[in-house]
Amino acid sequence: MAMDPRHAILFEPVRIGPVTAPNRFYQTPHATGFGWQRPQSGAALRGIKAEGGWGVVCTEYCSIHPTSDDSPHAFLTLWDDDDIAPLAATADAIHTHGALAGIELWHGGAHASNRMTRLPTLAPQVQPALFHLPTTARAMDLADIRAFRGWQRDAARRAKQAGFDIVYVYAGHDYLPFQYLSRRSNTRGDAYGGSLENRARLLREMLEDTREAVGDTCAVAIRLAVDELHGPDGVCAEAEGREVVEMLADLPDLWDVNIAGALGNDSKSARFSGEGFQEDYIRFVKGLTSKPVVSVGRFTSPDRMVEQIRKGVQDFIGAARPSIADPFLPAKIRAGRADEIRECIGCNICRAANNEAVPLRCTQNPTMGEEWRRGWHPERIAAYPRRETALVVGAGPAGLEAALTLARRGLEVTLAEASRQLGGRVSRESTLPGLATWARVRDWRLTMLGKLPNVQIYRESRMAADDIADLAPDHVVLATGSHWRRDGVGVVEMQPRQFPRALTPDDIFAGAEIIGPVVIHDDEHYFMGGALAEKLARAGHPVTLVTPYPQVSGWTVLTDEQGFIQERLMGLGVTILPQHSVTEQGATHARATCLTTGQARDIACGALILVTGRLPDDRLWQALQTRPNTVRLGDCLTPSSIADAVYSAHRFARLLGEPDRPPRRERPAHEGI
Amino acid sequence: MAMDPRHAILFEPVRIGPVTAPNRFYQTPHATGFGWQRPQSGAALRGIKAEGGWGVVCTEYCSIHPTSDDSPHAFLTLWDDDDIAPLAATADAIHTHGALAGIELWHGGAHASNRMTRLPTLAPQVQPALFHLPTTARAMDLADIRAFRGWQRDAARRAKQAGFDIVYVYAGHDYLPFQYLSRRSNTRGDAYGGSLENRARLLREMLEDTREAVGDTCAVAIRLAVDELHGPDGVCAEAEGREVVEMLADLPDLWDVNIAGALGNDSKSARFSGEGFQEDYIRFVKGLTSKPVVSVGRFTSPDRMVEQIRKGVQDFIGAARPSIADPFLPAKIRAGRADEIRECIGCNICRAANNEAVPLRCTQNPTMGEEWRRGWHPERIAAYPRRETALVVGAGPAGLEAALTLARRGLEVTLAEASRQLGGRVSRESTLPGLATWARVRDWRLTMLGKLPNVQIYRESRMAADDIADLAPDHVVLATGSHWRRDGVGVVEMQPRQFPRALTPDDIFAGAEIIGPVVIHDDEHYFMGGALAEKLARAGHPVTLVTPYPQVSGWTVLTDEQGFIQERLMGLGVTILPQHSVTEQGATHARATCLTTGQARDIACGALILVTGRLPDDRLWQALQTRPNTVRLGDCLTPSSIADAVYSAHRFARLLGEPDRPPRRERPAHEGI
Repeated sequence: MAMDPRHAILFEPVRIGPVTAPNRFYQTPHATGFGWQRPQSGAALRGIKAEGGWGVVCTEYCSIHPTSDDSPHAFLTLWDDDDIAPLAATADAIHTHGALAGIELWHGGAHASNRMTRLPTLAPQVQPALFHLPTTARAMDLADIRAFRGWQRDAARRAKQAGFDIVYVYAGHDYLPFQYLSRRSNTRGDAYGGSLENRARLLREMLEDTREAVGDTCAVAIRLAVDELHGPDGVCAEAEGREVVEMLADLPDLWDVNIAGALGNDSKSARFSGEGFQEDYIRFVKGLTSKPVVSVGRFTSPDRMVEQIRKGVQDFIGAARPSIADPFLPAKIRAGRADEIRECIGCNICRAANNEAVPLRCTQNPTMGEEWRRGWHPERIAAYPRRETALVVGAGPAGLEAALTLARRGLEVTLAEASRQLGGRVSRESTLPGLATWARVRDWRLTMLGKLPNVQIYRESRMAADDIADLAPDHVVLATGSHWRRDGVGVVEMQPRQFPRALTPDDIFAGAEIIGPVVIHDDEHYFMGGALAEKLARAGHPVTLVTPYPQVSGWTVLTDEQGFIQERLMGLGVTILPQHSVTEQGATHARATCLTTGQARDIACGALILVTGRLPDDRLWQALQTRPNTVRLGDCLTPSSIADAVYSAHRFARLLGEPDRPPRRERPAHEGI
Repeated sequence: MAMDPRHAILFEPVRIGPVTAPNRFYQTPHATGFGWQRPQSGAALRGIKAEGGWGVVCTEYCSIHPTSDDSPHAFLTLWDDDDIAPLAATADAIHTHGALAGIELWHGGAHASNRMTRLPTLAPQVQPALFHLPTTARAMDLADIRAFRGWQRDAARRAKQAGFDIVYVYAGHDYLPFQYLSRRSNTRGDAYGGSLENRARLLREMLEDTREAVGDTCAVAIRLAVDELHGPDGVCAEAEGREVVEMLADLPDLWDVNIAGALGNDSKSARFSGEGFQEDYIRFVKGLTSKPVVSVGRFTSPDRMVEQIRKGVQDFIGAARPSIADPFLPAKIRAGRADEIRECIGCNICRAANNEAVPLRCTQNPTMGEEWRRGWHPERIAAYPRRETALVVGAGPAGLEAALTLARRGLEVTLAEASRQLGGRVSRESTLPGLATWARVRDWRLTMLGKLPNVQIYRESRMAADDIADLAPDHVVLATGSHWRRDGVGVVEMQPRQFPRALTPDDIFAGAEIIGPVVIHDDEHYFMGGALAEKLARAGHPVTLVTPYPQVSGWTVLTDEQGFIQERLMGLGVTILPQHSVTEQGATHARATCLTTGQARDIACGALILVTGRLPDDRLWQALQTRPNTVRLGDCLTPSSIADAVYSAHRFARLLGEPDRPPRRERPAHEGI
């Protein structure tokens, strides 16, 4: 197919200082969980992005000095010349596909852990380290600032040597140059503190130094948080954010702008932000500089992208999460296959991987992070060598992914769904407040399945063991999902208990009538407990959420959502009772017991909802498990995230007929000691 | 010097199945933060232990299969033959010094994250994964159990090939075989569930399988948690713990026994346990087996060790933390230098490193973890090439360590302390409830300084810049410590505020009179806020602890202490107000404001204590910083943990006169993609 001519503007080349991007698709820096520890994995991942059509592909954060060590998280390093060759592999992988390679030079300042290097933490002022307690950061003196400028220059030179085209000065996300910029973290009395001009001095010097070091052949990009969401106390788009851009207007070759501050403001989940949610903060930038501007906003719609360019919001379409969900997003637009874009759902499982310090994972794209270690490609897959049939039972995320991947490999696939609705849990959960985008997991797979001639989908087709015996497919894939437990077994409360009148999320989705005040016992700690609390509070019920954890929706700290959830629930009047468990349900009350003291209190309760854990719907598996070539996948194997369900199915379908080896690991040498 | 003859019993060889330990010092398995990712670092660390006289040196946990992946934590692997050579380096390093090498084969079951391998989590029953949400573990079927037994056998064979002498079957710390053992996590209805005999079946099979695989030349050790501290609901020493030992009595060649369960019961900090605190739980074991028994209990006193043997509690002196604090503990006893043992203080900073997934660190032993990457040896240090003098100002942890290390290198050292008491913060903090052992940081250094002829210590000698000019030492080391902030600036509340009548921990140590109810605002989150709350509650004051964090003493989650602290404080009647900040101090009340809603409440308050952060006492540095060869170290550079203060001083003194290079890193290959 041909590209929609309205989208042609997205494929115009854009000059960035001494280099030229082949198009407007710009993969902004994002973490991968690979870093210096896994250089080949990182290179392969970035290479796939370039192959998928991103005109600029950037690395994750790359430390310029051992005083900026983010262990245990994976980060890149340009500390010495030994760091050049591993990074050159990434630049080469990007160049192979004609894209520009950008590198995000980084110093974390008070944000760094230095748990590997054990060096003192640096900052503009003496302050508690931002995350790594009980460390205090020391105030840099003028000698420190001179040394720091040298580190940036040295790292820039090494980056150039490694082959990068765009070198960053990184003043975003509360890192060191931003700590200088913000009054909140800079109370210095010298030439680097006080007035905004003084607070921006280091940033200006870094831009000048970097240009002097590598500006002959490399573009110098600035990544700036133009608002830290602390109002006039901090950098904000209406005041100092704007003034900094005015001050430095044409000094960098490119402006990469976003919002920063705590709680993941820059990478808000879809539950708390829509496509283009940063536009109001960053749109002023283009008016103040003649240089190209890039920002992000979870863009997945080509029309919305074109609008960004036409409206003059930005010159590139910056993307981190959408490029993770679909590395081939640009190529698909170019080929007129925009309907095939695997859209980011904004669930922030990628952020969780980052916060957990493990390799990147993605709900929509199960090949993400597997490029080197398993050799998986998001768009290519080996044909299955024989003409065989597969029956997939269940059209939730795992069933849809299994059907699609098996069909891509050439099997004749039958997908049977018991209910009328396809999508399984995704169709249900996407009805919860803020989770509508999660339906994209279903919709993309249905779109792609619709294009394949070798797939038949049957709704309202509950399969029994006998039906399967009659059909006699070569392969049977059971993806029958899971249901919520009624026995109270959760993460903290491991012993089964009796709550004969309690409801579960399944009952709510099935339309159970809720009368009177609601008590939710959340011992699962992901989104469900908080989302039901929100839904029922919005419906007018008094809601108390009881959880054995210290915080509501505790695991969502890792998806950068916990603070937002808590704020929303408290704003809706939900009562949160942490570090308690519901231990009894009476006629009109539920009893909650403190985990530490054992003290109990009664809470008025018309409906008790247990959100604790799920059990597989594996009856069919129990009947069929001795049948050859029969597997269970996704929640019916191990109830988990949607990401894990999709991955489970993709892995099975990808490896069908292949030996199941552990993934490759990047191992250090061990020549003896 | 000669060994105290009473200690000779500790140096008797002990037979363990087909191998013989040269003495009774047994370094039980403990994490290092190195794992398969850093094989050379691990080998060097274990080699130093063997050199220090430990008769048995074990590795950390070593996964037998990709379904047991503890990412992001560092763990060893024996998944395939490529894992043999890196581990052989560790076995070789241990053998070089005549010790036996033990390896702790491991499967985490529901405890594993599998965030790298992305394989489904296995467990005896369907249950929420213990830590890695929202994953559910699936119930192993009989085929899984057969496969699992094969993994253990294969890993044991590879361990033997790598040269290990002792191979573990690991049923401790809530890992997979223990999950089978405990009724709390095993509700199976088949031959592996129900009766204790059934629940212990897998353990028995693993012992038999491991013996069959490698028992000809390797000892088979069992590591068993004999009590999980859940009373009769779980495995407990009086009932099922004892029965399991009876059942398997002589099946393993060695019993390595401890207590398990949540909250770090096995590695309790000194604040919550004394030397030998596990004895009551494990002492029964020796009565039920003819095989040698080892356990742990933070033993650092040789007399206490001898008593353990004589009383028949155990055959070895098991140690993890004491071997970290002093790898040469056995050698020192043997040489009659028991007074030189660098005793573990039980602060659990080592546990924090493990929980943070970073390389091991130790308060007492700054060389821990630096054996390979910096080539540091705990007992040997290069002589400084010139005869020079050093003045160390301040005799807190950093000053004492700097004085000692410089003196060990041969400099003429003068140590000047302003007050009468040596030890600085350690002398003050060790007066807090439960922290008496922290004084060992001071006492060991004073003992060692007392043996060196080239050190002069002056108390009550406050130094001014002029005094230092007069003395004219070649090197000046400022270790003048820190003081607590009065401006309310902490981890969460970054803006200075006015609390004119507030006290700080320094005031409490100085004997400030406390009248009326106490409010503590803790925005530092380590031990101080909770320890002061305990001290003042014990003194009869009503105490409210307000903290912006969701939990009291939030950072102590990482030292495995948070649950114990919370329990103790609530037991003493302390009111904990999380997710609030003190925003105002009135005449009789303090105002606490909710961080989420902004809602304020007044709390009766006679004394407000701010525990938020510290500022360096760096006046002398301000006066002297242009003087050549002048440095500031420890809290006077960056207020932090005692561990960081000691490390800061050691690093300076160790590297004096050497080029300051970043530490070596173990890098993977990068041959391109």
